[in-house]
Amino acid sequence: MESYPASLKKLIELLTYLPGIGEKSATRISLFLLSHRELCEKLGETIRELPFKVTLCKYCQNFSESEVCSICADPLRDEKKLCVVDNPESLAKIEETRAFSGFYFVLHNLLSPKEGIGPKELGIERLVGLIEKRGVEEVFLALSPTLSGENTSAYLYKVLKPYVKKITRIACGVPMGMEIPFVDPLTLKKAILKREDLSEE
Amino acid sequence: MESYPASLKKLIELLTYLPGIGEKSATRISLFLLSHRELCEKLGETIRELPFKVTLCKYCQNFSESEVCSICADPLRDEKKLCVVDNPESLAKIEETRAFSGFYFVLHNLLSPKEGIGPKELGIERLVGLIEKRGVEEVFLALSPTLSGENTSAYLYKVLKPYVKKITRIACGVPMGMEIPFVDPLTLKKAILKREDLSEE
Repeated sequence: MESYPASLKKLIELLTYLPGIGEKSATRISLFLLSHRELCEKLGETIRELPFKVTLCKYCQNFSESEVCSICADPLRDEKKLCVVDNPESLAKIEETRAFSGFYFVLHNLLSPKEGIGPKELGIERLVGLIEKRGVEEVFLALSPTLSGENTSAYLYKVLKPYVKKITRIACGVPMGMEIPFVDPLTLKKAILKREDLSEE
Repeated sequence: MESYPASLKKLIELLTYLPGIGEKSATRISLFLLSHRELCEKLGETIRELPFKVTLCKYCQNFSESEVCSICADPLRDEKKLCVVDNPESLAKIEETRAFSGFYFVLHNLLSPKEGIGPKELGIERLVGLIEKRGVEEVFLALSPTLSGENTSAYLYKVLKPYVKKITRIACGVPMGMEIPFVDPLTLKKAILKREDLSEE
């Protein structure tokens, strides 16, 4: 490192702040960039502009380059259904499945007393406003089934109950393709207790 | 991905051009950057400026921000010794050991007829010029002991012999800390044939 010029050392250092990038990868990437002048131009500009271009949709709080995101502006979506997610990554994954046709609301946080994240930080008022404005009939809670996800779902259920007919949550169980002996006991327990009644179909 | 705004998608795509970065890491890094406005500013600017700031030292061809790099400008270095390396990474590693006190010459390439890299691309004329200008007495060939490294060393030996008293090469053998049963046969053979005579010391 000592023999590298200052701007190369600076780049290596800055890159190590990124998630999953250690000093070795940072060095490899920096040396690669040194021999790819055009990529430096494009990538540097894109990173620099990112926070100026991307904002949050005023309705669903998803990332957007306009005041209203493309999903909230889509007239073909089912207005009566609203899916609540932790973060934009979850939203993206759910969209990829094409299994949900309604709108979204992105919390960006989960309840976490330790980190000082209470009901206010979740933007519940906005969420309730959206439900009333759209006349939402089903709120679908699609939070990750972690401790804080479950706590947040339970809290949202209590708060939103007076405003909507139906509140659903994402199903938990054995992942598709996984062999039963490899499933963790908690998931397996859930999958047994919530077993589906095939005769109902 | 579909639900992400255009500049986020563009950043994810550009990041996947970097070595060791797949779509998953690129997405993770992009989302991280979105919430780190100041880092975007610094990192974007540093990447954009990199190719304008870093050039090659006119003597040793190492990366440098000035016409002459800090090593070539160092009056305390031993002018009589010149180490030839493949690339700036090798130079950096050798410097870290503090075991070599002379100057360097960076080839940036190894002979490779397949890739069209012949003697001309190695900058041999420059190297010979440097040897004559400095009155170098020992050329230390520190190329990686790979097929093309060995070929290049053999070639350099032949070409440089008329110009210098002494040509040395990096020692090959069993890595420190490694157990003999785990050493590959080629290295082990080399380590046996080149065994050190302890009575000489």
